[in-house]
Amino acid sequence: MIEVIAFDADDTLWHNESHFQETQAALTRILDRYAPHAEVEAQLAETEHRNIRLFGYGIKGFTLSMVETAIEISRRRVTAAEIHQIVMMGKAMLDAPLDLMDGVEQVLDSLLAADYRLLLITKGDLLDQRNKIDKSGLADRFHAVEIVSEKNSSAYRTIFAKLAVVPDSAMMVGNSLPSDVLPVLEIGGHAVHIPYHVTAVFERHDDPLEHLRFHALETLRGLPELLNRLQSG
Amino acid sequence: MIEVIAFDADDTLWHNESHFQETQAALTRILDRYAPHAEVEAQLAETEHRNIRLFGYGIKGFTLSMVETAIEISRRRVTAAEIHQIVMMGKAMLDAPLDLMDGVEQVLDSLLAADYRLLLITKGDLLDQRNKIDKSGLADRFHAVEIVSEKNSSAYRTIFAKLAVVPDSAMMVGNSLPSDVLPVLEIGGHAVHIPYHVTAVFERHDDPLEHLRFHALETLRGLPELLNRLQSG
Repeated sequence: MIEVIAFDADDTLWHNESHFQETQAALTRILDRYAPHAEVEAQLAETEHRNIRLFGYGIKGFTLSMVETAIEISRRRVTAAEIHQIVMMGKAMLDAPLDLMDGVEQVLDSLLAADYRLLLITKGDLLDQRNKIDKSGLADRFHAVEIVSEKNSSAYRTIFAKLAVVPDSAMMVGNSLPSDVLPVLEIGGHAVHIPYHVTAVFERHDDPLEHLRFHALETLRGLPELLNRLQSG
Repeated sequence: MIEVIAFDADDTLWHNESHFQETQAALTRILDRYAPHAEVEAQLAETEHRNIRLFGYGIKGFTLSMVETAIEISRRRVTAAEIHQIVMMGKAMLDAPLDLMDGVEQVLDSLLAADYRLLLITKGDLLDQRNKIDKSGLADRFHAVEIVSEKNSSAYRTIFAKLAVVPDSAMMVGNSLPSDVLPVLEIGGHAVHIPYHVTAVFERHDDPLEHLRFHALETLRGLPELLNRLQSG
């Protein structure tokens, strides 16, 4: 019997990765005269990967990695004006309006009407995430909002214990197999994967997945029906 | 009867602000040929203040504000190599070893021996704070660790409610009057102010404070004795 539905936020409830991709495309245009677009993209991916331990996931770290990439790929020829443009792109991302996924409010409301308890479990920069949750206008629909630096099985175990949630009664819904699906299955919970059309490099995962407590959906709109089917089956 | 002691982290359990001040001094040296040190400091303070809504408190935001300051104060003449130095200073701060305040472990252990429940309540960048808590080796001594984006009365109220702590049974210990002392007094808790020798501009607060549940100490080492005095009085 599933009683608690936990949601990932970025790229599950609202668009996120597409903003990173658009900003990355703008970066390649700014650095056009120093290197081909594909080289800029490869260098940025490498810089982000190298910095993830120090910077974590979030817009500020991404912006610093863009600045580092610009300096390195231009062999220190990038101008202050160009770096200024890059920093301003990062600030524009932080200040961007939130773009909710199609049908989010209706889906959450129909789950609340069916007496599910809803959680929001997201990773990333604390202030980024807080700002986005505030902008979303969805905060009141969640029994609890948990922002963590890494979504692994021990993070889920801690959250569920704190909120007195039995894993077998909980379902996590998200776009990432390694962050939203696998660790929850590992501790005995249920999981629904809803892929996002653009997937961050560090979220990619190629294994096919067969598991009793695992389900895949194309969009969030299918969730209430999936739950009806599971609960009556 | 005080049963729960909550601690601030930065500049209460370990040194933090001094690292920002040292890095700021290095920035003024890098930008020496563009502007006098005092102007760089004033411009940085202004940039940080303007960016706090988007960046919050933390090293990544501080680094981006240093980059912006360098570009603006040099009238876009700052070189890529100089900006690279600035970014590397930010990364060095993120990677720096943690410098515990004198006597922290003994004080925490003596409070635990006296059956107090200890909490850590800190604001700032989630990953920064997580990394520092891990580096501190103190995590096991705390019943709960809460990282928030703003330490105001509603944040404290939420934390205390979640952990079933009655405010009147709790004492918050920290270096900041606006973040650690005033909001806790406001919701009926006790507070101890231990000033840090360097205080961030946004933490400065000039009002003298007289309050039944307020106490001031010069160093953390005085805390067990203060508690003994209060509990027996």
